[in-house]
Amino acid sequence: MSVGLSAVEGPVLIIGAGLLGSSIGLGLRAQSVDVVVSDASPTNEAVAEDIGAGRSLRALEQSQESLPDPAVVVVASPPDVTASIVIESLRKYPHATVMDISSVKRSIVEDVLAANVDASRYVGTHPMAGREKSGPVAARGELFTSMPWVICAHESTRPEAVKTAVTIAVELGATVTHLDVEEHDRTVALISHVPQVMSSLLASRLQDTPLYALGLAGQGLRDTVRIAGSDPGLWVQILSANAQPVVQTLYGVREDLERLIKTLESPTASGARLDIAQLMSEGNNGVNRIPGKHGGAPAAFSQMTVLVDDTPGQIAQLLAEIGELGVNLEDLRLEHSPGQPAGLVEISVNPNEHEKLVEDLTERGWKVVR
Amino acid sequence: MSVGLSAVEGPVLIIGAGLLGSSIGLGLRAQSVDVVVSDASPTNEAVAEDIGAGRSLRALEQSQESLPDPAVVVVASPPDVTASIVIESLRKYPHATVMDISSVKRSIVEDVLAANVDASRYVGTHPMAGREKSGPVAARGELFTSMPWVICAHESTRPEAVKTAVTIAVELGATVTHLDVEEHDRTVALISHVPQVMSSLLASRLQDTPLYALGLAGQGLRDTVRIAGSDPGLWVQILSANAQPVVQTLYGVREDLERLIKTLESPTASGARLDIAQLMSEGNNGVNRIPGKHGGAPAAFSQMTVLVDDTPGQIAQLLAEIGELGVNLEDLRLEHSPGQPAGLVEISVNPNEHEKLVEDLTERGWKVVR
Repeated sequence: MSVGLSAVEGPVLIIGAGLLGSSIGLGLRAQSVDVVVSDASPTNEAVAEDIGAGRSLRALEQSQESLPDPAVVVVASPPDVTASIVIESLRKYPHATVMDISSVKRSIVEDVLAANVDASRYVGTHPMAGREKSGPVAARGELFTSMPWVICAHESTRPEAVKTAVTIAVELGATVTHLDVEEHDRTVALISHVPQVMSSLLASRLQDTPLYALGLAGQGLRDTVRIAGSDPGLWVQILSANAQPVVQTLYGVREDLERLIKTLESPTASGARLDIAQLMSEGNNGVNRIPGKHGGAPAAFSQMTVLVDDTPGQIAQLLAEIGELGVNLEDLRLEHSPGQPAGLVEISVNPNEHEKLVEDLTERGWKVVR
Repeated sequence: MSVGLSAVEGPVLIIGAGLLGSSIGLGLRAQSVDVVVSDASPTNEAVAEDIGAGRSLRALEQSQESLPDPAVVVVASPPDVTASIVIESLRKYPHATVMDISSVKRSIVEDVLAANVDASRYVGTHPMAGREKSGPVAARGELFTSMPWVICAHESTRPEAVKTAVTIAVELGATVTHLDVEEHDRTVALISHVPQVMSSLLASRLQDTPLYALGLAGQGLRDTVRIAGSDPGLWVQILSANAQPVVQTLYGVREDLERLIKTLESPTASGARLDIAQLMSEGNNGVNRIPGKHGGAPAAFSQMTVLVDDTPGQIAQLLAEIGELGVNLEDLRLEHSPGQPAGLVEISVNPNEHEKLVEDLTERGWKVVR
C-alpha cells in the first residue's frame, strides 16, 4: 500500500465498473490498494475482476467471505443514479468516505444534503478524463495521468474526506483543482457541455448534405464537429443534470445568432459589415484566452506543413530529423487531404525556430508546402 | 514551359500578390511559366517579385518594356473587389482567359454577366487551400498540393477557358472538382462558412470566462474553437458575399437551438430526455457522413494514447517504433495536458492492429495510458 492511502483501514469499494470505475480500480491495484468492485451488470463486474481492477463483490458474497467495511466508496455509476447510490452508501457504510465522480455536481450534492444521512463524509469529485470507448474492457490504470481532477467539497464535508479524495486523485496521477459546486458546474457548462451542443448542432446540419460536398471538407470542419460523435445516452444525462448553467450560456449564443441572422438577411445594409466583424473579433478574443500547451500563457506558435508519403515510418523519419535539428515540437496535426495518397503534417514550433527549420528541412529533401 | 500550359501564348498575369496570388506565381514559375504580378500595394508587388513569384508589372512599365498581352489573367484580389477587376481585365485583355479564385462565386458571376463584356472568357474557380498567415511572404509554390480546387464554369464559359483553368490547377498539384455556382456556394456555406460562424459564436462565450475555468479546458474545446482565430476582415467579405446560403443553414441551427433551449428550461418535463437524445443522435449522423482519410468511406479507426516526455525526438522515437512494427498510422493528435511537462500522443490505427500494437509498445517500455 502506498504512503498516501496507508492511513486508510479497509478496502476501497468501487460501485460501477464501467470505463472510469474500472480504470480507478486498475490504478489503485497498481499501488497495492485493496479494491472491491461492484456493478449492476454481473458481466461488467466479472470483467472488471478479470482485468485486475479489484475483487468482485458478488464473488465475495457468494464465497461467504465477509467484506470488511470499506474505508472509501467511489461511486462511478451513470450520472442519473449517482445521488441515490451515494445516499445508500453513506447509510450502509457508516465509517466510509463516499466520493462520486460524475461530471455534474450540484444536483447530486443537493439530493445528498436533502436526505437524512451523514453528508459530512460525502465529497463530490470530477476526474476530467475519458476515452472514445466505454466499458471495463477499455479501462486503463493510467487513464487519469496528467489530467485535471476537480474536487468539490460542500460546506459540511469533513477535512478528512477531502484529504482522502485528493489522495486517490493524486495516486492516480491526476492534477487536483478545488472548486465549489456552482463554479464547477458553470465551468463544465462553458468548457465542455456548450461546446458539445454547438458541435452537435453543426454536425446535425450535415445530415442532408450531398456526399460530393462533404468530400471537399477540410480540417476546419473535421475539428469543429469531432466531438459530435459522442454517446447520446451519456449526454442526455449530463445535459439534463446541468441544464441551468448550459441554458444560461445558450441564451448568449441565441442572442448573437439572432443578430447575425438579421445582419445576413440584409448584408448590404449600413452597419452590416461592422456587425459581422464584431462577432468574428469576439470569437478571436475568446479563443485567445485559452491557455497554451502545459497550462502556460497562450502562446503564438508558428506553423508549417510538410508533405509526406502515406507509408509507415515516413512521419517518424520527419520527426526524427526535426529532433536531430534540436527543434522541439509544440504541436502536430495530420491533415486529411481528400482523394490523395499523400499526407500533410502540420507542425507547430517556436516562431524563432521557424525560418531555420524550413531551410534545414528543405535542404534535407522534405517538401515544406506552406 | 510544361506540357499543360505550352499552348498558352503570352504570360500569366496575376492580379493580387497576397498569399494565394503569390503562391500561384511561385508554383507556375517552378514550371517555367512566364508570370507577371500586379498588386494595389507596391510593397506587396515588389516582395512577390523578390521571392520569385513573377515579374512586377510596375517595374515592367517603368522600364518601358512592353508587356505582351497576357494569355491568362488570374484575379487573386480580396473578394469585395474581385468582380470589378475581372470585368476590367476582360475589357483590357480581349484575348485572355480570366479566372478568379475567390471563395464565393455567385455574386461575382452575376456582376460579370450583367456587365457589357465577353463573359465567355471568364471562369470562376476556388482553390480550397490557405495558411494561418497571409501576404506574399507566407507564399509557398506547393500551397495547393493535394488540395481541392473547384472550377465553376457558367453557362456561356468557353470550353477552352475551362481547360486553361483546369490546367493551372493541375499544374499546381491540386485535385479538380467541377461544380455549378449554386452548388459551390451552398457547399462552402455548409462545410466552411457555417462551421466558422459556429466556432466564433462558441469562442465568443469564452470572453468573460474566468481563467481558472479555461485552464481546465481539454482537447474538445480547443478543437471546436480553433478556427475562431481566423481573420475578421476576410470573413466579413466572405459572409456578406455568401449571406443567403449561410443564413438558410443558420435558420436550421436556430430552430434546433430553440428546441434545445426550451427542453433545457424544463429538463424534467416528459419527453425532455428524448428531445436531447434526438439532437445528439442527429449530430452523430452528420459527423458519420464525413468521408475518412483520403476521401474514402468513413472508417472507424481505433485510438490509443501514449505518454511521452516533452523533449525533442520522443514522439519521433515512438513513431519510428510504430513504423518498425509495420503499423500504418491513420491519424495522430497531440493532447495538451494542463500544467504537466509530459505529452500525450493519440494514435489512430486499423482496429485489427490495435491489440497487438498496445502489447508491443508496452513491451518496448511505452506507457499506453488509454
